[in-house]
Amino acid sequence: MEHTSKQFETELRELKDKLLIMGGRIEEVIRDAMASLIQRDTNLAKDCIQRDHEINRLELEIDELCFKMLALRQPTASDLRFITFGLKVVTDLERVGDLGVNIAERALELNEEPPLKPYIDLPKMAVEVQKMLKNSLDAFVNEDVALAQGVLESDDRIDEFNKVIFEELVEYMGRDKSNIKRACRLVFIARYLERIADHTTNVAEMVIFMVQGKDVRHLHSLTQQ
Amino acid sequence: MEHTSKQFETELRELKDKLLIMGGRIEEVIRDAMASLIQRDTNLAKDCIQRDHEINRLELEIDELCFKMLALRQPTASDLRFITFGLKVVTDLERVGDLGVNIAERALELNEEPPLKPYIDLPKMAVEVQKMLKNSLDAFVNEDVALAQGVLESDDRIDEFNKVIFEELVEYMGRDKSNIKRACRLVFIARYLERIADHTTNVAEMVIFMVQGKDVRHLHSLTQQ
Repeated sequence: MEHTSKQFETELRELKDKLLIMGGRIEEVIRDAMASLIQRDTNLAKDCIQRDHEINRLELEIDELCFKMLALRQPTASDLRFITFGLKVVTDLERVGDLGVNIAERALELNEEPPLKPYIDLPKMAVEVQKMLKNSLDAFVNEDVALAQGVLESDDRIDEFNKVIFEELVEYMGRDKSNIKRACRLVFIARYLERIADHTTNVAEMVIFMVQGKDVRHLHSLTQQ
Repeated sequence: MEHTSKQFETELRELKDKLLIMGGRIEEVIRDAMASLIQRDTNLAKDCIQRDHEINRLELEIDELCFKMLALRQPTASDLRFITFGLKVVTDLERVGDLGVNIAERALELNEEPPLKPYIDLPKMAVEVQKMLKNSLDAFVNEDVALAQGVLESDDRIDEFNKVIFEELVEYMGRDKSNIKRACRLVFIARYLERIADHTTNVAEMVIFMVQGKDVRHLHSLTQQ
């Protein structure tokens, strides 16, 4: 039993590490995809798109690890809850990775045409979103409710960015027909960032539920069996 | 043991039923959100937005049921795999529900202005996406690889719809400045539908992996412990 518990601790550490590695890779994709847009670096955009495979592989590895822990280690209630939420978090993370790749795809298209305008709000929005991603995952791994709360509070600023960017780009579209397609692609990038922020708030909500639900809702329902 | 196994069968049936109910509710939201757009029915759009709560509640209930089954029933390898994928599928489903609500939100905005154009491709695209959603979930619950394969094959048509709709709406934007905002909102709706299709292909891929991985990858790795 002691032995099993040690193995379990090792695997739990591995699970947390892998989640953080996957999160780190995705942060890099978002950062580099934004750089490929701003610096008009098509090779970097292509490189970001390639990295999707590694992220998908990490998802499979994490799924497999969770499955193994559930099958062989009979985790206790709170560890079990962490693993079941881990399976959900990794699903969110994989989608975030896809959205990072989507940014690079739009950058690739935009780099084939003359630049529309200097980017001011979009890079700021991306930095904020990357911070939300990092914090939501740190909050999950460390079960840190205060950090998760901070992620939820950032979401309003992201919605505000999205609105401002949309209005400005609609203005550009109206000025000249030849701006329309490029402006649309930039609107898409703002939407991708907004959606990434939504995924990070999902993770943050899970943290709060996981930590507080442990005492409130779930152990209660378990003792009633 | 006999008793536990019977309880487990009942819970597994309940899990499948709940997943199908949640999928059904989401299909209704997508259908009604599209109807609220096409028939310019603002009350229906508001009603769709309200239904997000019920969908979120179903996600929590399914999570809780999976958690309970994992904690108390020590499921066998193949049942365990079904439950762990269930946790991932429900995460995808909840995002699909959000996207259905997003369609209703755009419909709400569009209904406040004069109609831009008659809708031809968008409703066709929505019908196809709804079918993908239904089939992906049926494939999951029945572990039906052929049905899952069909979902993957539909995805190309959805990408094609998205491209055609985008080009047409860019054309509208170019014709008259006053079209731009409305056309953007319609572009968003096509993107939401495309993203819903992406989620259904994720579910379909899980089905194929779950059914084939059972024999190939995962039991293999388990017997190596």
